[in-house]
Amino acid sequence: MYRIIQGIGPKRSLQFVKKAARSLTTFRDHFPKNDDFSNRHIGPTEEEAYQMIKYLGLKDIDELTNRTIPDNIKLTRPLNLEEQLDEPELISRLMKIAENNKVWRSYMGMGYYNTHVPNTILRNMFENPGWTTQYTPYQPEISQGRLEGLINYQTLVCDMTKMEIGNASLLDESTAAAEAVALCHRQTKRNKFIIDSKCHPQTIAVCLTRSLPLGIDIDIVDRDKMIFDKKVAGFLLQYPDTEGTVHDMQNLVEEAHKHQCLAVCATDLLALTALKPPGEYDFDIALGSTQRFGVPLGYGGPHAAFFAVKDKFKRLMPGRMVGVSRDSNGKDCYRLALQTREQHIRRNKATSNICTAQALLANMSAMYAVYHGPKGLKHIGTRVHKATCVLAAGLRKTGHVIENEHFFDTLHIRPVYTPSEIMIKANQKKINLRYFENGNIGVSLDETIEDEDVRDLLWIFGCEIPLEDLIKEEENLTEKLKHSRTSSFLEHEVFNKYQSETEIVRYMKILENKDLSLVHSMIPLGSCTMKLNSTTEMMPSSWPALSSIHPFAPIEQAQGYLQLFLDFEKDLCEITGYDKISFQPNSGAQGEYAGLRTIKAYLDDNDQKHRVVCLIPESAHGTNPASAKMAGMDVIDIKVNKQGGVDMLDLKNKAEEWSDKLAALMITYPSTNGVFDKEIREICDLIHHLGGQVYLDGANMNAQVGLCRPGDYGSDVSHLNLHKTFCIPHGGGGPGMGPIGVKAHLAPYLPTHPIVRPAGARHQSFGTVSAAPYGSSAILPISYAYIKLMGPKGLKRATQMAIINANYMAKRLSKHYKILFTNNEGFCAHEFIIDCRNFKTSTKIVATDIAKRLQDYGFHAPTMSWPVSDCLMIEPTESESKSELDRYCDALISIRKEIDMIAEGKLDLHDNPLKRSPHTIQDVTASEWNRAYSREMAAFPAEFVNPTSKFWPPVGRIDDIYGDSHFQCRCPPVTTYKSAYLD
Amino acid sequence: MYRIIQGIGPKRSLQFVKKAARSLTTFRDHFPKNDDFSNRHIGPTEEEAYQMIKYLGLKDIDELTNRTIPDNIKLTRPLNLEEQLDEPELISRLMKIAENNKVWRSYMGMGYYNTHVPNTILRNMFENPGWTTQYTPYQPEISQGRLEGLINYQTLVCDMTKMEIGNASLLDESTAAAEAVALCHRQTKRNKFIIDSKCHPQTIAVCLTRSLPLGIDIDIVDRDKMIFDKKVAGFLLQYPDTEGTVHDMQNLVEEAHKHQCLAVCATDLLALTALKPPGEYDFDIALGSTQRFGVPLGYGGPHAAFFAVKDKFKRLMPGRMVGVSRDSNGKDCYRLALQTREQHIRRNKATSNICTAQALLANMSAMYAVYHGPKGLKHIGTRVHKATCVLAAGLRKTGHVIENEHFFDTLHIRPVYTPSEIMIKANQKKINLRYFENGNIGVSLDETIEDEDVRDLLWIFGCEIPLEDLIKEEENLTEKLKHSRTSSFLEHEVFNKYQSETEIVRYMKILENKDLSLVHSMIPLGSCTMKLNSTTEMMPSSWPALSSIHPFAPIEQAQGYLQLFLDFEKDLCEITGYDKISFQPNSGAQGEYAGLRTIKAYLDDNDQKHRVVCLIPESAHGTNPASAKMAGMDVIDIKVNKQGGVDMLDLKNKAEEWSDKLAALMITYPSTNGVFDKEIREICDLIHHLGGQVYLDGANMNAQVGLCRPGDYGSDVSHLNLHKTFCIPHGGGGPGMGPIGVKAHLAPYLPTHPIVRPAGARHQSFGTVSAAPYGSSAILPISYAYIKLMGPKGLKRATQMAIINANYMAKRLSKHYKILFTNNEGFCAHEFIIDCRNFKTSTKIVATDIAKRLQDYGFHAPTMSWPVSDCLMIEPTESESKSELDRYCDALISIRKEIDMIAEGKLDLHDNPLKRSPHTIQDVTASEWNRAYSREMAAFPAEFVNPTSKFWPPVGRIDDIYGDSHFQCRCPPVTTYKSAYLD
Repeated sequence: MYRIIQGIGPKRSLQFVKKAARSLTTFRDHFPKNDDFSNRHIGPTEEEAYQMIKYLGLKDIDELTNRTIPDNIKLTRPLNLEEQLDEPELISRLMKIAENNKVWRSYMGMGYYNTHVPNTILRNMFENPGWTTQYTPYQPEISQGRLEGLINYQTLVCDMTKMEIGNASLLDESTAAAEAVALCHRQTKRNKFIIDSKCHPQTIAVCLTRSLPLGIDIDIVDRDKMIFDKKVAGFLLQYPDTEGTVHDMQNLVEEAHKHQCLAVCATDLLALTALKPPGEYDFDIALGSTQRFGVPLGYGGPHAAFFAVKDKFKRLMPGRMVGVSRDSNGKDCYRLALQTREQHIRRNKATSNICTAQALLANMSAMYAVYHGPKGLKHIGTRVHKATCVLAAGLRKTGHVIENEHFFDTLHIRPVYTPSEIMIKANQKKINLRYFENGNIGVSLDETIEDEDVRDLLWIFGCEIPLEDLIKEEENLTEKLKHSRTSSFLEHEVFNKYQSETEIVRYMKILENKDLSLVHSMIPLGSCTMKLNSTTEMMPSSWPALSSIHPFAPIEQAQGYLQLFLDFEKDLCEITGYDKISFQPNSGAQGEYAGLRTIKAYLDDNDQKHRVVCLIPESAHGTNPASAKMAGMDVIDIKVNKQGGVDMLDLKNKAEEWSDKLAALMITYPSTNGVFDKEIREICDLIHHLGGQVYLDGANMNAQVGLCRPGDYGSDVSHLNLHKTFCIPHGGGGPGMGPIGVKAHLAPYLPTHPIVRPAGARHQSFGTVSAAPYGSSAILPISYAYIKLMGPKGLKRATQMAIINANYMAKRLSKHYKILFTNNEGFCAHEFIIDCRNFKTSTKIVATDIAKRLQDYGFHAPTMSWPVSDCLMIEPTESESKSELDRYCDALISIRKEIDMIAEGKLDLHDNPLKRSPHTIQDVTASEWNRAYSREMAAFPAEFVNPTSKFWPPVGRIDDIYGDSHFQCRCPPVTTYKSAYLD
Repeated sequence: MYRIIQGIGPKRSLQFVKKAARSLTTFRDHFPKNDDFSNRHIGPTEEEAYQMIKYLGLKDIDELTNRTIPDNIKLTRPLNLEEQLDEPELISRLMKIAENNKVWRSYMGMGYYNTHVPNTILRNMFENPGWTTQYTPYQPEISQGRLEGLINYQTLVCDMTKMEIGNASLLDESTAAAEAVALCHRQTKRNKFIIDSKCHPQTIAVCLTRSLPLGIDIDIVDRDKMIFDKKVAGFLLQYPDTEGTVHDMQNLVEEAHKHQCLAVCATDLLALTALKPPGEYDFDIALGSTQRFGVPLGYGGPHAAFFAVKDKFKRLMPGRMVGVSRDSNGKDCYRLALQTREQHIRRNKATSNICTAQALLANMSAMYAVYHGPKGLKHIGTRVHKATCVLAAGLRKTGHVIENEHFFDTLHIRPVYTPSEIMIKANQKKINLRYFENGNIGVSLDETIEDEDVRDLLWIFGCEIPLEDLIKEEENLTEKLKHSRTSSFLEHEVFNKYQSETEIVRYMKILENKDLSLVHSMIPLGSCTMKLNSTTEMMPSSWPALSSIHPFAPIEQAQGYLQLFLDFEKDLCEITGYDKISFQPNSGAQGEYAGLRTIKAYLDDNDQKHRVVCLIPESAHGTNPASAKMAGMDVIDIKVNKQGGVDMLDLKNKAEEWSDKLAALMITYPSTNGVFDKEIREICDLIHHLGGQVYLDGANMNAQVGLCRPGDYGSDVSHLNLHKTFCIPHGGGGPGMGPIGVKAHLAPYLPTHPIVRPAGARHQSFGTVSAAPYGSSAILPISYAYIKLMGPKGLKRATQMAIINANYMAKRLSKHYKILFTNNEGFCAHEFIIDCRNFKTSTKIVATDIAKRLQDYGFHAPTMSWPVSDCLMIEPTESESKSELDRYCDALISIRKEIDMIAEGKLDLHDNPLKRSPHTIQDVTASEWNRAYSREMAAFPAEFVNPTSKFWPPVGRIDDIYGDSHFQCRCPPVTTYKSAYLD
């Protein structure tokens, strides 16, 4: 039955169940199918791999492995994973799993609502690699599409909330609330914070968890009992509150402001189409989720959270913000603004540790607003409210008490019957309601509501009045919504011109085509592993059986998901050598935080509360120190040696110096400098010997899978960036997933959740890090699929090819650039750094110029100035073919020759194609060309840059300083095209 | 259950069933949802529509309708159709329908096989509007992507068959065979044709049907009884034959050639990976289906058929051929070749009436070959053959007789048990086999075959030998396949470099981005109605419950389809005023042919055999006379009057002159000149009065739906281009669908089918026109969805808006161009013609120059030089917004001003932006610019041509004459990029 709808022909349904028992002499074994997915995933053909191995002077692929991975950590057996499935088998397997989920109608609310994802957005954005495979827009000139989408998002948030500044998304509403608490604390330097007891329980849980290490005392009190004084940093309200009540907030905000306490409002954008927005109450911060703006429930995610503040707090804003700036031609353009707030620059002094956010989902929500426009959104809001009024009327007439007199879409009901009577009837209709502990019942309606739904709800509550009569009555009521909104919103043209499907498809396509993504060329980002995100891996995330489940639905309805988590956990444990996985952290930084908190909880539980020092190599990614700081640890930097690894002497000294207080070492492996440190096992032993724990950052797992396992050589905990090593597409800056693996002794301390306790969570848990029990569940099938499609052999070969690809490029480039770190055999791991510092003196060329010049060659730059300033770090991944690697090398070599020309005086020191890169179409087609080099050199600098398929940067080099000093984070005004000939 | 997988949240499942009975005071009626699909489909907003109505000097939308549609044909009541569904309801409805289909494993063969559609091709081509919404590549400069795909297809066909020339697809294998019969007849001028009795039965049926009016006698004989002489035009063999036998064809071909008879081979590309190809047997023509190359079964289609000939027959080739030519810069490029063969030029003297083919599916199959490459295809072929050998071994050992000693993938089995015993067991396993009338059984394997399938088949035939043993035995056999292939294939680089998913995604994206499609801007083709193809309409075609059913599966398994056909037929009858629909014709031209044959069969059956004259206005589309000719009619041209309608006097004269022999009038309404002829009712009456029938070409139904009905005002039969009026995307030249509607008296004569008799087909049927009983069933849900989503009101408003949009543009342009035909109120219908003939003398500018210049403005040209030479016909459709119409008008007005500048001497007579259009990026970025106008004028001629989103023609103006005189229809050689720096 389930085969009817998706992606698979007849007959494959039960095969995988039988596979375990299958005989060895089957047809499959003797005449295997042509399609080995690992050959589709891995870029180089066998022939190409052979050529590269020869070029490196090696005998075979294993020789390179042997000469890069230290002997004492090498995995000497194959991974004990299921044999690979082919693509139809995988789809069939996941369908079987999905079938074990039950999609009931959920009216539980609590920040998660049913929504109609417009099909054209689903297909043209969510299911389109042109929208999903971009990297974070750190190269803004070739990211103008998603940046425009995100500025639409920020405008949407600012308009709906009436706040001044919005960011480009956070991970979920609960972490956004925790960020708000931290902001208030940071701003006011006060240690007390008040939270309304009627906030969503998961939000309260995350705030409590996150506040503890920061030394913030949280008071959970009823709204009418809040007392402000000079010790209180601020307060957080939910509006409408978790029970659905719409309440006046004027007095509270005024009262708080009298004591210089900040006011934070967690709210709901659909409700704000009808209700007075927080900005008009003078709130300092507003936050919430945009899930119900066209993003499926997904059993918890991914969705985008929003975060908006008054202008004066913008430099304390957590996460990325898109701002308007100007390019080299003075044209308006977009780029990430005020980055100096962020962890990759400020490290442990950053506002937050957030890195990857939810760009793709923010873009979907923004496009949902573009699709519906202000009138449509208003209409949807009104309709949901009317439906709620009709339901309320029916319930009241049946004798139930509606506890919240003023509501938008949620009723808090004191029923005349017992909750179990109601639950029996609700279950009969396959409807989930919210059952409060005191016997009350919550019902939240949403845009998908239809007659049948209201009828069913009335029936559940025993109301026998025909819907028609209730509607007629409601029609005649003139009663107005309390605290209703009077201000307009979304008046910008972008929200008012794309409402026909033809127009919005073209708009989405225009934006898509402004972004360089993996559909164009390689994106070789050191430490970000931009590998293939295959269609087969991506398909299941669109299936309603996975996407339409409320995260707090009874677990009986999520049995498919649980089965997937269990199997996936088993695989990840085998791959990493850990004993237990928590899927809750929904980004890498979240994983780091959760891992460190787990360590801390373990230490605390073992009378080691005094251990608070975290050693971190100075080459670490900025999230590491930022996370350690948030976890309440003190960061001590460790020096890096010439090979790019840990300076053992410094480590020993520091570790011993701090041995009493040593909580953890946080280390990336292979190192962020791209080398397998020979001493990793000794390092781990040393830390353990001194009573500390080892946190191994999993960002570079792509160099280890199948070759070595952190759990084997001494690490206690790691996060796994599923959006790097395990094929979740980067989405232009999220979604990501950062589950953590731990050794058994840490397992009891892993995250839990106040509503749905994750499988295996214990009472010793340190707390809750995400709004949903399993983070962004809906994208986990992507990584699951990858592992199953590759099988143990494929995974190992992928790792080996990633290392070969990197070494091949490094060797080719070594004749033209200095390669910064290699091991003593001269090999790098899966990434390497080219040194660009030596050009500056003679030619004024810096890494940025090379990065921008690469755009003229049709390429995305490698990671710039990290981990070494003014250098470029290249990670090709296994998915790129030799010819693509060659083109990229050729581009860099060609640029090197351009640099030589500058040095030789053949090109001008200022007026040269590097300094003036990237070149736009407008630049090179203008009649006026007064540059000291040719148009051809500007635009077609290599033979492979084909004019018929070149990706063109839509804007010239962007002025960051101008943008930050003229900060503007909402859609700039546009002049509508007016016909020159219209009468 | 069925909701688990696709496109719909919980709860909407049964709603539509209840809707009919729904009360009028529901929530839905009082608080309707925001989403009225018709507002998404129709481009202009209400405000814009109002502005346009005012501009036209009208009171309201109805006034225009009243002043364009003749009173005596106006439909004075609303269409009696179901109220519109919203998008989730529609998806839910179609799921319910799809659920009534049963997807069994089909091993019936007969030209249809299970296949694994690579998911990346499915998503990035079939489900991508960037690949589906292009028009036929008549503007080759902006169609280089699909043209490259199609030349890959032609190369694939030529390589596999070893023929010299292949075309860019035909409709299906059976019509391809009928085209071959006609070609042989045309070439040899002989009237006898021999068909192997072991051809597929549907192929024999179509050939018989199509040969009759051409006066060709078909002999169906066994292969070994074929006798050739000077009367025989040729013979057709199936290879392997329909029973699966692989036979030597050498003697037959030699024997035929001795008598100058042509040899035609219907074959299978997968079999040709293993078998000696027809070209090596010296066949003159090879044809077949490429369905099993990655195109789903789709209950019959759409799929692409191939057709390949010896070089000397290329000018007799039916259908479109892509050829290589050069552009204005001398660069290789692609365009349609040798168009002088085709109906749009040669009319009733054309090779064939075929117009729309199966471009999208041909592109998918070509991409499947690119994806697998020669090694992969060989592997798949070998594996299928091995599986068949194993199965054969098992059956033989069980006592069954394999009648065909030599086979590729199909066994013809004389079973030891009765067929019904076997059928019972097969049904138990949900497996379809082919049951021959004599009790024999056919089994055809395919690339999806797995152990379980072979085991199940062995079990069905009572074989108890374990599969493992059979496999081991087979392994040891050294026996070679008879007539095996020794020649290589697909050595061209394009089939050997894109096998990783990363590479093929980029290749598909490069091709996509070379094509201007509806995702970029409007394509206002007179008489082609390029309207929105919405995602929701498109989604169901991907569902396996619709796409994975064999067209000859027992009808119990296709109950969902039958339900859809029935409901859809009802709707189409209501829209057209006809009584019965046949869905068999799978293109407009096929519909014309089927309709005329239906008329002829009716006349013949009523003792009017002598009626053979078909009156056709001289402005008719070329398919009309070509179809009439193929239907055995004599074409008499009717003059056109000044208003673009039928010259009544000429019509009366001719009709009376030919009244004895008058079979039919074939007329397009509103006329191909874009006007509602006032006298249409009188015309129909006249024809009927004289004993003839009226065939009304439905190409312009988009101007009639909801306003008037052909069946009401006198037409007897029409075809409906579902790919025009009813939203099937054009696919770059197909698929299309051309079902015909008829009045009751013609219904008994509608098409039938030799294997699955379509619902309602009678013994009086004139025959069979397509290989599948219901044509391209899998795309019918698109049109069905459109009707249901629009509802009666939406459909009518769409028609009215199509007429408003056209009149708005016509009025705006009338100040700059002469508008050729309007009615006596000054209004056109849904399209209009601008006269470009007056520019030639003074400025040398012709319509082509304007068409090519439009590309510089980012637009696709209107229909060029049809129906009036050197004019342009514009049909904007209702889906385009006012701003898009304005931009298009502005482009044409701006061009008009450029023409003025030439006339005034401000621009050179030869070196001007029109004559030298279109301009490529390479043109305008070259250092050298010695044209008499600026780069800006060349590339950015209007304010709205935005450099950051402009669609650029990848090549300059293409030299058609060069291409035809240096005809080359296979991939040109490429030079692989070699690194300049590689050591």
